[in-house]
Amino acid sequence: MYIVIVGCGRYGSLLADRLSCLGHSVVIIDRQKNAFKALSAEFSGFTITGDASELSVLHMAKIDAADCLLSMCNEDTLNLMVTQTAKFIFGVPKVIARVYKPSYESIFRKFGIEIISPIQLALEAFLQDLDLDRGPENEAQ
Amino acid sequence: MYIVIVGCGRYGSLLADRLSCLGHSVVIIDRQKNAFKALSAEFSGFTITGDASELSVLHMAKIDAADCLLSMCNEDTLNLMVTQTAKFIFGVPKVIARVYKPSYESIFRKFGIEIISPIQLALEAFLQDLDLDRGPENEAQ
Repeated sequence: MYIVIVGCGRYGSLLADRLSCLGHSVVIIDRQKNAFKALSAEFSGFTITGDASELSVLHMAKIDAADCLLSMCNEDTLNLMVTQTAKFIFGVPKVIARVYKPSYESIFRKFGIEIISPIQLALEAFLQDLDLDRGPENEAQ
Repeated sequence: MYIVIVGCGRYGSLLADRLSCLGHSVVIIDRQKNAFKALSAEFSGFTITGDASELSVLHMAKIDAADCLLSMCNEDTLNLMVTQTAKFIFGVPKVIARVYKPSYESIFRKFGIEIISPIQLALEAFLQDLDLDRGPENEAQ
């Protein structure tokens, strides 16, 4: 697959490394050149320094040919704009946004954007973990 | 359950709200008083302004009586120290740390601390989502 990732922070860089390692063609975009230092030495894709909310930058990333765009920034507004552009202007087949603030989940949904919310996943994992352990351990309850 | 949460950022505040809403007794600790603004109006627990790496602050939170301590900061070293203290000094029955940087996962495990890693959960969700959609959509592959 040809995958465009927006944002090379903790999330973007980890995903880029993993997808590159799995043999996919990856292009990763970030405003800060320094951000690409987070990529591993094994990353075999391309990096683009620029603002992904600008169409010219998405063109540079050959967005028209992308099978998939993942917007991984910690700015929900940027993720929302980039994913809408990819999905509705360029017709990228698979578009997913990372949700940063839980309050934005419903906004992404209203705009028809598929999301993954790390904080919700973690919340569910914490609650599940606590539920599973409501056994003999918690005699103090 | 009587639950102590360390860190009132995005993760800590959301979890505190939810656990309070579920009827648990929650005490949440943060160094910054302003951080507690992130809690909802419905939060019925207590807040403590202080550094949870200091034993006096954990005592203030009545750590000895806690069924559970969740350390939710975005500083792995602080989460590690607080969870070790809770587990091995105060014998809190259930102790879980949030992992911020993936590279810290193995360190928490070596110290016998149970963890939840939002970034790993999200990574798995992204990869699963992409795998599930390797069907007819991706003819360009």
